[in-house]
Amino acid sequence: MSDLSIAYLGPRGTFADAALRAMPVSDGARLEPFPTVSAALDAARAGEVDYALVPIENSVEGAVTGTLDELSGGVPLVIVDEQVLAVRFALLVRPGTAMSDIRRVATHHVAHAQCRTWLAEQLPEAEVIPESSNAVAAQSVAEQTTYDAAIASSAAGAAYGLDVLVDGIGDNEEAWTRFVLVGRPSTPPARTGADKTTLFLYMREDHPGALLEILTEFSVRGVNLTRIESRPTRKALGDYYFSVDCEGHVEDSRVGEALAGLHRVCATVRFLGSYPRHDGKAPRVRRGVTDADYAEAQAWLSSVRGQG
Amino acid sequence: MSDLSIAYLGPRGTFADAALRAMPVSDGARLEPFPTVSAALDAARAGEVDYALVPIENSVEGAVTGTLDELSGGVPLVIVDEQVLAVRFALLVRPGTAMSDIRRVATHHVAHAQCRTWLAEQLPEAEVIPESSNAVAAQSVAEQTTYDAAIASSAAGAAYGLDVLVDGIGDNEEAWTRFVLVGRPSTPPARTGADKTTLFLYMREDHPGALLEILTEFSVRGVNLTRIESRPTRKALGDYYFSVDCEGHVEDSRVGEALAGLHRVCATVRFLGSYPRHDGKAPRVRRGVTDADYAEAQAWLSSVRGQG
Amino acid sequence: MSDLSIAYLGPRGTFADAALRAMPVSDGARLEPFPTVSAALDAARAGEVDYALVPIENSVEGAVTGTLDELSGGVPLVIVDEQVLAVRFALLVRPGTAMSDIRRVATHHVAHAQCRTWLAEQLPEAEVIPESSNAVAAQSVAEQTTYDAAIASSAAGAAYGLDVLVDGIGDNEEAWTRFVLVGRPSTPPARTGADKTTLFLYMREDHPGALLEILTEFSVRGVNLTRIESRPTRKALGDYYFSVDCEGHVEDSRVGEALAGLHRVCATVRFLGSYPRHDGKAPRVRRGVTDADYAEAQAWLSSVRGQG
Amino acid sequence: MSDLSIAYLGPRGTFADAALRAMPVSDGARLEPFPTVSAALDAARAGEVDYALVPIENSVEGAVTGTLDELSGGVPLVIVDEQVLAVRFALLVRPGTAMSDIRRVATHHVAHAQCRTWLAEQLPEAEVIPESSNAVAAQSVAEQTTYDAAIASSAAGAAYGLDVLVDGIGDNEEAWTRFVLVGRPSTPPARTGADKTTLFLYMREDHPGALLEILTEFSVRGVNLTRIESRPTRKALGDYYFSVDCEGHVEDSRVGEALAGLHRVCATVRFLGSYPRHDGKAPRVRRGVTDADYAEAQAWLSSVRGQG
Repeated sequence: MSDLSIAYLGPRGTFADAALRAMPVSDGARLEPFPTVSAALDAARAGEVDYALVPIENSVEGAVTGTLDELSGGVPLVIVDEQVLAVRFALLVRPGTAMSDIRRVATHHVAHAQCRTWLAEQLPEAEVIPESSNAVAAQSVAEQTTYDAAIASSAAGAAYGLDVLVDGIGDNEEAWTRFVLVGRPSTPPARTGADKTTLFLYMREDHPGALLEILTEFSVRGVNLTRIESRPTRKALGDYYFSVDCEGHVEDSRVGEALAGLHRVCATVRFLGSYPRHDGKAPRVRRGVTDADYAEAQAWLSSVRGQG
Repeated sequence: MSDLSIAYLGPRGTFADAALRAMPVSDGARLEPFPTVSAALDAARAGEVDYALVPIENSVEGAVTGTLDELSGGVPLVIVDEQVLAVRFALLVRPGTAMSDIRRVATHHVAHAQCRTWLAEQLPEAEVIPESSNAVAAQSVAEQTTYDAAIASSAAGAAYGLDVLVDGIGDNEEAWTRFVLVGRPSTPPARTGADKTTLFLYMREDHPGALLEILTEFSVRGVNLTRIESRPTRKALGDYYFSVDCEGHVEDSRVGEALAGLHRVCATVRFLGSYPRHDGKAPRVRRGVTDADYAEAQAWLSSVRGQG
Repeated sequence: MSDLSIAYLGPRGTFADAALRAMPVSDGARLEPFPTVSAALDAARAGEVDYALVPIENSVEGAVTGTLDELSGGVPLVIVDEQVLAVRFALLVRPGTAMSDIRRVATHHVAHAQCRTWLAEQLPEAEVIPESSNAVAAQSVAEQTTYDAAIASSAAGAAYGLDVLVDGIGDNEEAWTRFVLVGRPSTPPARTGADKTTLFLYMREDHPGALLEILTEFSVRGVNLTRIESRPTRKALGDYYFSVDCEGHVEDSRVGEALAGLHRVCATVRFLGSYPRHDGKAPRVRRGVTDADYAEAQAWLSSVRGQG
Repeated sequence: MSDLSIAYLGPRGTFADAALRAMPVSDGARLEPFPTVSAALDAARAGEVDYALVPIENSVEGAVTGTLDELSGGVPLVIVDEQVLAVRFALLVRPGTAMSDIRRVATHHVAHAQCRTWLAEQLPEAEVIPESSNAVAAQSVAEQTTYDAAIASSAAGAAYGLDVLVDGIGDNEEAWTRFVLVGRPSTPPARTGADKTTLFLYMREDHPGALLEILTEFSVRGVNLTRIESRPTRKALGDYYFSVDCEGHVEDSRVGEALAGLHRVCATVRFLGSYPRHDGKAPRVRRGVTDADYAEAQAWLSSVRGQG
């Protein structure tokens, strides 16, 4: 029986909720919904929960860039795991409701945008009312008769006792959201051989070639990036930091040397954690940058320096 | 008197509305509000309007990554101008409403997040109800008594006949949003010497070093980036394209050669336009990459080839 | 019957002589020996001959770096062809001389160095006298009895009526020399698809990263180097230029753009010619840098600029 | 009183001799002339002497590329010091000889080439006879009357009791030669803050971009090159290694990391030594690559890894 407590972007029935339940860490843990990403992160920062699960990439439920910005400042948090969830929208109704009964549909405005084609064809007369999240929309349908239907995940239907009237109504069937599990800084989870590392890199000044400089620190050690974004700092327009995911674990020699290199050329490097990749895909590590290659080179250097 | 028609993310009183009215192009033009970025862009694509003004960076009014994704696919649109607007939140009320009267506050959830500190201190008991945009929230306050106040721009207050009860209630006083004016592809606006070019770059495959390769195409011609984001393509997780802003105009020799170079190494280059920078800041162009340097080098090459 | 005249590093019987006779251009041409590389080059500069053949790489007959330095300054000359010759040393004697008769051996000091092992084993008592070239040594043996033998090529033996007493006496059986045929600047020889281009690159100042900058101009266009040397300029210690061979012909789009790029970043680019490779080996040209790729990219750029 | 023995390229009176006597290490040491660079190096390899002083760059006395090739193979030797000598040619005669007496001039053919202008103007009728070195020429003039004059250094004149009839007769007044003092491998001399490191780098295969890869290993750690040459290996035409000098000492963190990086990407790295620069010029070390920067980055990395 786990003693862990984990915050998530609630309420029950959100995609975050579904993602969290699919993770082994949630077994037996106390799962606490929070109304916003900020609130969930603050709970983790304050020690009210051990971890928080929040969307970080391509979410359909809210501000993912907001998550990045939240993590870039304030009391440090680090990522210890990630989860990717296919995003599939369903039309949820109270038991007994038929298509012809639907006048008012509640949903989050992003979900609305993603289901426009289906709505225009199947429910052209229906009024769509925005709610703060899909799960809130489902909850509203369950609790009152102001709305006739909600667009949300089928999990939200299960959470609130609603029926799935139609499933897969989104325009883009391959939609997905990446969630990260964050906690207070400590020794990163052990290497699995298929890991990822997340960083925030703050430049010393806006000098031409700064980005090339940063990327070279990675590439010269054979470390591949899987995501990069320049993000404006809060200070001034045109002042940027980079949010970066790379392959490998901080315990890997090549990743460690790259991070130390970045620490030397950046104003600040904020380490956001090393954690197993959700897809378990091990990186192709080119010749010359394995841990064995590093150890051998170090031994050779010591001998040349006359200490070997 | 202008014959132009311009779509914007409405309704009246949004930050997009305010940004558009500050642009000379709007003088005498017919300005049409649309409920979503998609709808505004579709109107421009269909030729129902000449241009559309939409938020593209760090907006507090909605999905900016959504704007990028919208522009990355479908019928091509190009950016012809940009505008940056300081974002300042006000508490708007119907005339006569006092602080002590406020029970229910309407606003967009992002604005809510940005004003949390002030709300917690000044209106700790108030219920905050999400609306699809700040302007819609203001409009609702004006038209009905369900809500007592809205959080939106003071321009929204003016648009709907509301009073500014308190101004500057956001946590971050330097917030801003960048908007772009897009239209159907045609010859880009003339060079001003302080221009920007926006591109979408699709990689041929996910090979290590692809990003470094791309950046080198820019840097070797002395072209600086001002923004970069890797964005997942719609196809598969882990398949990315890059959204990039660089200094300079496609008519600049260095930018033209960089674009041709990118065209050779990328699967697809989508040109999103060259347009004047909102801040009129001319780039520092290093020795060797001015148009004169290019012309001189070309003349030398011709002489070496024996054609000069 | 050719009207051409060609200078070479003489006298008759040198490796340069042998290399020249193996080149089709020498058929029917008037071949004129000169005592030094400088003298041969000066004859070509002055128009006394059409071309000069001189050693440029790994010669065993003299100062190849001297050739580079000669070509780097003065009246411009360009390379129009190259030839590579295996270097094989023979012990040459007047007819009738036996091993036991040999007391004094004449040769160039470099050839001496390359045959030290054989001499130590086979003629440990012999005195070795330096001459200004192997061919001069052979000539001396033919014309007088001061020396008993010469170390030179078997071709030198044939030229001066000497016998090859022992062949292949060099320590390094794979020795070779690369010769270049130079003439006054004109339109380069036509592309063969397996060409090489030679350049001298003078830096603007000794700034860190200058070499990386230069190499990037090549690599970004997929142009491979086959030789590079930093050479001190005549001005001051620590002031360098680069002598470079690359694959491809100045008429190739990728090579042309690289040269124009170098012209923009270097203080001076001295074009030393494009010419067929002696080994006829066509370069591996990566995707994106063929002439067709360049033409397509240029057409796309024109369309984007609104001129297509 | 020193117990050291040092070989040099002799005989007495060569530029190598002059260079060696200008170095503090020669004080009280036993100095032994050898007829060739090979012989001097072999004496050091065999332990017959402690060190050998040989020309390595831009010599006017012989094959400097030969020195590089000698050092690149065989029993390892490392450089422990360097010396640069201005090269100045004098016309040396036996006391009493006047210009009008001079019929036959002895010298090395490289010195001959460097004094051609002066000879053509001042001694147009004189016969020039090649000797194996300038010092041998001077010695010959001193010991016999076959020659009337020698072209060599004024030091050679002093060594053999000859008069300087005319000094500074070379075409290039700024000529110089760099010499290196080599010995058997041991702990390198202590850092001075103005050091240089010499390497031979053998590529794994002839892959495009190999050189760029190598240079990036240096540049990413802020290590500047002062000399680079691609040199053919003895194996086959087109198979190269690189001979490189860089700023800094193997004990410098940035140099050590660069060397370890090269060891990982090259087939072989041959360390030729770290030693004080002859000019005492300290390198400009950019921010981020000092030893203090390295130590700080390593401490940060340890803390991130949870071991700090």
